[in-house]
Amino acid sequence: MTVPVKDMLETYPASLGNVDRAAMIRCIEECFSCAEVCTACADACLSEDMVADLRKCIRTNMDCADICETTGRVLSRHTGYDANLTRSVLETCAAACKACADECERHADMHAHCRLCADACRSCETACNELLATLG
Amino acid sequence: MTVPVKDMLETYPASLGNVDRAAMIRCIEECFSCAEVCTACADACLSEDMVADLRKCIRTNMDCADICETTGRVLSRHTGYDANLTRSVLETCAAACKACADECERHADMHAHCRLCADACRSCETACNELLATLG
Amino acid sequence: MTVPVKDMLETYPASLGNVDRAAMIRCIEECFSCAEVCTACADACLSEDMVADLRKCIRTNMDCADICETTGRVLSRHTGYDANLTRSVLETCAAACKACADECERHADMHAHCRLCADACRSCETACNELLATLG
Amino acid sequence: MTVPVKDMLETYPASLGNVDRAAMIRCIEECFSCAEVCTACADACLSEDMVADLRKCIRTNMDCADICETTGRVLSRHTGYDANLTRSVLETCAAACKACADECERHADMHAHCRLCADACRSCETACNELLATLG
Repeated sequence: MTVPVKDMLETYPASLGNVDRAAMIRCIEECFSCAEVCTACADACLSEDMVADLRKCIRTNMDCADICETTGRVLSRHTGYDANLTRSVLETCAAACKACADECERHADMHAHCRLCADACRSCETACNELLATLG
Repeated sequence: MTVPVKDMLETYPASLGNVDRAAMIRCIEECFSCAEVCTACADACLSEDMVADLRKCIRTNMDCADICETTGRVLSRHTGYDANLTRSVLETCAAACKACADECERHADMHAHCRLCADACRSCETACNELLATLG
Repeated sequence: MTVPVKDMLETYPASLGNVDRAAMIRCIEECFSCAEVCTACADACLSEDMVADLRKCIRTNMDCADICETTGRVLSRHTGYDANLTRSVLETCAAACKACADECERHADMHAHCRLCADACRSCETACNELLATLG
Repeated sequence: MTVPVKDMLETYPASLGNVDRAAMIRCIEECFSCAEVCTACADACLSEDMVADLRKCIRTNMDCADICETTGRVLSRHTGYDANLTRSVLETCAAACKACADECERHADMHAHCRLCADACRSCETACNELLATLG
């Protein structure tokens, strides 16, 4: 039994202000999922025979995992909301996801985990940019 | 688009050894989900009028979030697998989930987020114990 | 026995490129230290009688702790260095430190932990901005 | 300017109970420092020519970094202290540090970063065990 982000948000005891709930929910889900996938992809790359050619991919995966996780955490906190900080965090997360998607796509034909990871990163990048757009 | 843990595991380039895949997949999913829910519950508690009565709950939520996230990360790494360390991590995670579920249940009638969080923690505790049982 | 960041950097097996080593070392140290201090300050605020007035401070502390820690991790990885991502991460970290220092300073007269935390955040903000300046 | 753990603990607004302060301070410092060093060692290993032989070391470094960081965070929270959970977290952290020290020592002659990392891990393992001994 895993509790959806949407259900937690519906029980929040205070106002969320003017934020677009659907965009926020999607972005939180994408960030945490992308962090999981990047953690798994880093380890899968580490197990490949050609690990020496995947150094940059592993590093990019680890950066993206840490940044997505922190972004998911910041977005999950509504008390004392700070629009400027949220915007900066989302821009950084979109940049990390773009970098990781670009890198993973270069190996996507050879490594199915990089294909899945590139998809997860591209999707998270989009969710960050869409939430940014709603923040005005 | 969020990529399921199962899909990442199926693309893993090396053997996973004798691990019970279904129990492993469920435990990784539960750990990451529980970390999300505990992060959200800590912030929801912080927004409640009666925050002064929820201090212990907030702290327990934060500990459980950090421990579940680390457990999810350790379980997502299969290269150089260490059964003794995995066992110890799972025992600690089960203990953290139990403590957080017990604490949240005390406020579950009053706070719907604590009800959901208690359920997530109980479910993650079970998943950790079930994976532990398969490790022998 | 704690190993200084400087000693780890001196054993790095590859080139660090054109990065200003002193600014990099200082920034990594400040990020990890600020993450520690913010984690401790969040919990100290939670223990204060007037916790209801410190909600925003606790949240800002938690955001700053997560962001500083991720920044320290990203800066500690030199393999496959990406200047654009590093710049974005540093800007976000400086913004988080500024927000937390501003908030903690409002309570600095009353709470010594907020005074120390404001100092740590201001110092980390400076270190991020100084490293940014050297990146060109 | 980095704020020592000791200074933060001295400003804590509530009782810490019967905990041995010196052992607690040392363990928090060691955990956060070990997390930093393991993060740096993982990336240094990734840059080595013989990366294919360092796969297990990289994985062990990443596990140890995550576990030490979570342990440092849990130990930094005194509100709603739970001795059983603290004990379990410390045992897991000592196990992770031992595993990482053992692995890094195997490469210590060849890689100076592994030598430093082994020292940091051994020192953190000792600090965890000493704090455990004071918890009774």
